[in-house]
Amino acid sequence: MYHIMVYITAGSMDEARTIGRELVSGRFAACANIHPMSSIYWWNDELVEDDEVVLIVKTTGDKFEELKEKVSSLHSYDLPCIISWKITGEKNYLQWISDETGKL
Amino acid sequence: MYHIMVYITAGSMDEARTIGRELVSGRFAACANIHPMSSIYWWNDELVEDDEVVLIVKTTGDKFEELKEKVSSLHSYDLPCIISWKITGEKNYLQWISDETGKL
Amino acid sequence: MYHIMVYITAGSMDEARTIGRELVSGRFAACANIHPMSSIYWWNDELVEDDEVVLIVKTTGDKFEELKEKVSSLHSYDLPCIISWKITGEKNYLQWISDETGKL
Repeated sequence: MYHIMVYITAGSMDEARTIGRELVSGRFAACANIHPMSSIYWWNDELVEDDEVVLIVKTTGDKFEELKEKVSSLHSYDLPCIISWKITGEKNYLQWISDETGKL
Repeated sequence: MYHIMVYITAGSMDEARTIGRELVSGRFAACANIHPMSSIYWWNDELVEDDEVVLIVKTTGDKFEELKEKVSSLHSYDLPCIISWKITGEKNYLQWISDETGKL
Repeated sequence: MYHIMVYITAGSMDEARTIGRELVSGRFAACANIHPMSSIYWWNDELVEDDEVVLIVKTTGDKFEELKEKVSSLHSYDLPCIISWKITGEKNYLQWISDETGKL
């Protein structure tokens, strides 16, 4: 068992909240943290500047495949940013992530 | 010697600033970065939506245990989010983290 | 081939946008996400509190050395925060990072 953060971008606060609620209520993640940001990226060979939103969720490594499918099914983007990395930390908090994502 | 980022959540900007100042002034971390966010999480089997604050601090792996104790002692939450991951980067900046957290 | 996030801090939104545009337009990174934050840190043995900006970019591990040089050359700080960690994630998104940073 290991734990991960997943960094997802969304097109608006509404979209980020909708995805965050679905991920947490469906036990794909224990919690979601959302904040607005400005982005700069290549799209179809154009340099685009946009207002977007970051959605960071905390879950277990086991949940990543399902979470990824869920985000892709909800997302307005063809190619959503869904990236993750392993975390460690305060053991009771990690246990809480495991417990909350384990309840079905 | 390795370096880490620690991701902590707080209930308000005031709480985040208080914890950040204590961590940096006490040499538990070299610096703290703070921004507001919206969160969605399970608490006592209720789906909660809340305004919270993210506090990201940069320190050495050696400091993590003490930092965790310090955050827990200052925090208003029973189960604060304190998670971390290893970082690498520009070597003079990493050296600065080591230097600042090594001064006592 | 592996992928990384790079966490950079800047002194203003203007500086962060300038660095972000240069990194993405020069193919040092596939995208940049920017948000304001408050920071607390040691500088010349003084505890400083400041308004700064976070710039998070996504790229490949191969690009890190060049990206670091580019950021240092553009940055107003003597010792900019340039830290990174490995990421994994949705394979088409990772492929997109590789593709965008590979076009020259």
